[in-house]
Amino acid sequence: MFEKSALETLIAFDKKIKQLDEINALLGWDREVYMPEKGSEQRAEQSALIASYHHSLLISDTMKKLLESVCNENLSDTEKGYVAFMKKKYETAVCLPQKWVEEESKTLSMAQDVWVEAKKKNDFKLFQPWLEKIVKLQQERGEFIAPCLPNAKNTYDVLLDQYEPSVSSELLISLFSEVEPALRKIVQIRKEKQLEMPPWVTALYPIEGQRAFAGHLLKYMEFDTLSGRLDETMHPFTTTLGGQDVRITTHYYENLLQSGIFSIIHEAGHGLYEQNIDSWIRLTSAGSGVSMGIHESQSRMWENIFGRGKSFWTYLFPLLKQEFPSQLHSVNLDSWVDSINYITPSLIRTEADEVTYSLHIMLRFKIEQALITNQITVSQVPEMWNSLMEEMLGIIPSTDSEGCLQDVHWAAGLFGYFPSYALGNFYGAQFISAMKKDGVNIDKCLENAELTPVHSWLKKNIWQYGSTVLPTDLLLKSTGSTLSSKPFINYLEEKYCK
Amino acid sequence: MFEKSALETLIAFDKKIKQLDEINALLGWDREVYMPEKGSEQRAEQSALIASYHHSLLISDTMKKLLESVCNENLSDTEKGYVAFMKKKYETAVCLPQKWVEEESKTLSMAQDVWVEAKKKNDFKLFQPWLEKIVKLQQERGEFIAPCLPNAKNTYDVLLDQYEPSVSSELLISLFSEVEPALRKIVQIRKEKQLEMPPWVTALYPIEGQRAFAGHLLKYMEFDTLSGRLDETMHPFTTTLGGQDVRITTHYYENLLQSGIFSIIHEAGHGLYEQNIDSWIRLTSAGSGVSMGIHESQSRMWENIFGRGKSFWTYLFPLLKQEFPSQLHSVNLDSWVDSINYITPSLIRTEADEVTYSLHIMLRFKIEQALITNQITVSQVPEMWNSLMEEMLGIIPSTDSEGCLQDVHWAAGLFGYFPSYALGNFYGAQFISAMKKDGVNIDKCLENAELTPVHSWLKKNIWQYGSTVLPTDLLLKSTGSTLSSKPFINYLEEKYCK
Repeated sequence: MFEKSALETLIAFDKKIKQLDEINALLGWDREVYMPEKGSEQRAEQSALIASYHHSLLISDTMKKLLESVCNENLSDTEKGYVAFMKKKYETAVCLPQKWVEEESKTLSMAQDVWVEAKKKNDFKLFQPWLEKIVKLQQERGEFIAPCLPNAKNTYDVLLDQYEPSVSSELLISLFSEVEPALRKIVQIRKEKQLEMPPWVTALYPIEGQRAFAGHLLKYMEFDTLSGRLDETMHPFTTTLGGQDVRITTHYYENLLQSGIFSIIHEAGHGLYEQNIDSWIRLTSAGSGVSMGIHESQSRMWENIFGRGKSFWTYLFPLLKQEFPSQLHSVNLDSWVDSINYITPSLIRTEADEVTYSLHIMLRFKIEQALITNQITVSQVPEMWNSLMEEMLGIIPSTDSEGCLQDVHWAAGLFGYFPSYALGNFYGAQFISAMKKDGVNIDKCLENAELTPVHSWLKKNIWQYGSTVLPTDLLLKSTGSTLSSKPFINYLEEKYCK
Repeated sequence: MFEKSALETLIAFDKKIKQLDEINALLGWDREVYMPEKGSEQRAEQSALIASYHHSLLISDTMKKLLESVCNENLSDTEKGYVAFMKKKYETAVCLPQKWVEEESKTLSMAQDVWVEAKKKNDFKLFQPWLEKIVKLQQERGEFIAPCLPNAKNTYDVLLDQYEPSVSSELLISLFSEVEPALRKIVQIRKEKQLEMPPWVTALYPIEGQRAFAGHLLKYMEFDTLSGRLDETMHPFTTTLGGQDVRITTHYYENLLQSGIFSIIHEAGHGLYEQNIDSWIRLTSAGSGVSMGIHESQSRMWENIFGRGKSFWTYLFPLLKQEFPSQLHSVNLDSWVDSINYITPSLIRTEADEVTYSLHIMLRFKIEQALITNQITVSQVPEMWNSLMEEMLGIIPSTDSEGCLQDVHWAAGLFGYFPSYALGNFYGAQFISAMKKDGVNIDKCLENAELTPVHSWLKKNIWQYGSTVLPTDLLLKSTGSTLSSKPFINYLEEKYCK
């Protein structure tokens, strides 16, 4: 019984760490959603205070001793997974010198302000010295953490592991080299086949009606509004404020009906994952999605594979028409489904369709990997960006603001994060393929708004575990396969090339 | 320079304590305003965690040493006041044994649930054993804190001091004995003179229009919406989430236009105080109103003395008519002002007019003082309540739910708090009288929506100090007088008996 009690003690201690995470999530959520303008300076200090309490608990002697005294032998697989997760979290945290953490935090905070300015002024040179500092800091981060990851072959792989454990750049290069030509081919085919976008797509759709439809959408997806809520922010996001408090946001545009709808479906996909983690895990630090890629698989699966399919809208389109009878009176289901599957190369990643989206990611992967491994310098980024845009998407941005300055990620130090978005697409298609093999009639479920079989499969195979498994093990267990881009390519070819 | 640096160190340390207060305020605000239903259990744990960090810092050796090393000699008056405030805060906190604090916290939490149930079922007997526990706990609280307050004559005075430093029950009895007959006389006079309430008062006023008018109201009062915001909750309140983040709430009822309006004016009065504390004080534990009574003076002054006056509505009534042209088309300014000054005895404190309100407070004071000093037992409360209601207000509640079970305060352990509401009325009238003597033409300011002279007087004499002065000193400095009920009686007689 001693071992069990050590685990219980660890969990009780870790609950406080998780609560501090959640408190900081509330501080961040409120900042984006409701905080008055002048509250920001004080809010930053409040967040820093909570972060310092969080860090102190995580790297404490208590934590060290608890991890030592938890003996793996008598634990269930999930409990073992939890302990492994906590060990890695602890070891990574103690690897980073406090002084370096403060330096990084200060630099990133200032760099993001400079990035906003540089993007506004279309002035890459302004941002360049900051990006140089950040690249150096991230290289250092990789070197600090490296001893915890004996299998990582280079610094970029160490950074990658923070977001997608057990995936290497070697594997990414191999996957991407299969996907890239396939996507480019589909883009070409669509270019020839596709009709013009009809004018009702960009008609005016009053926000009140969009809000009302959002209610139908969340109910349909079975997002639990007693354990979560939907608010409005400039940039949509999902955040977990408690074991039963998962919040998503969207942004409604009067002249872009689809933007609000698909960001809700995307964020609710993230939200469903967080709401359905097993209850004891949800209260611990492992109570979140297992990796950025698996998390993104859930949001992108709901957004694209389900959300851009005809079955999804068989049920929902009549409800959408009810909200907008005049704008949509002459539109039938097929025209609507066509309009949400328009494929065309564009400059901005966040506005890209489900085919070109992964091309944007591969481009960023090529550049950030080259930067971290010193194959290029920061000054070469704009040129490399533009030439890759031309090569991969056939278009060149006329400004860096629409090019290499468009995303906040690098200014926020998130090197190794971008690939998660593409991996999310690959994982998602693998899960759907396995779900079908397991006998779930997805189309029927979606058409009849009876999502229990879909939810049950996702909960059993993905959601319940939180971070107590490795993404590779989760994938193998639920699909019988290792990471592959083939189901994703098959899905797109089936959908767009028939 | 050593002393100065000790003060700076104290302030820097105290800033963390204040930040934890603010974080807990956000956790509480969100719970009331936006938290999804199932989030409550986890939220309680988050709040308890922050409270424990707060308590640890406050009673720490660091705090003890900092307070010892801050030498008063070279400090300004305000700095001395700050140090005195912190010393009292520290000493009170260390007086209370940790085990007792936990016992109190657990009891109060459960008692409030029982109170909700008892009020719903009109069953005082259900609540009685809990109220007995609470009275005992509050008596113990008084005994624990007593050594910090050598001037307090009895346990009730110790409890009172928590909300209104330097006011004794002896003084309250003397003030109340002057006020009670005066108020009862006014009620009698109004009963004879007053007309029936016109039907448009309880017409339907759509919430959207009420929200739009709230914008005019906040702008008029110069409540800074870049440093604050207005939300909607079941019970209106004010809370400070940061040096420049003060939030108020209201509750709109479609058929009770005045309820929403006057709770906004009331809460904005509290909010203006919090927004206008000097910036360095605002970041410390002294960065809140100096006492509950002075705080209530600000809210009640805006709500009643300003907000129920003709000058206030000379500017605002046309804007209100704009929002509700059909409901108010036949109503003139005088009828409106009459309607918001309707005086009549009623059962519920929170719905009472500005004359009878203080009678409700005095009744509660008599009962709670008798309870704490063991002059009555808890079982006698309903009977004492009803007989005092008959004596003071001429009406008797037909149920305890509308009688002694109506307020949450006792279930929340707030003995000594009620008198603040009446003191707020007295202080407010004293401040207004002094403001006029100092040459502020209040009516002109209100009529022209040029509130700078009013704000300047309040900021200079009250708001700026936060809790770095004693309420008695603040009053003497700003009005030249000690606490008196005469200006309040004069104000009411002038308004209602002419």
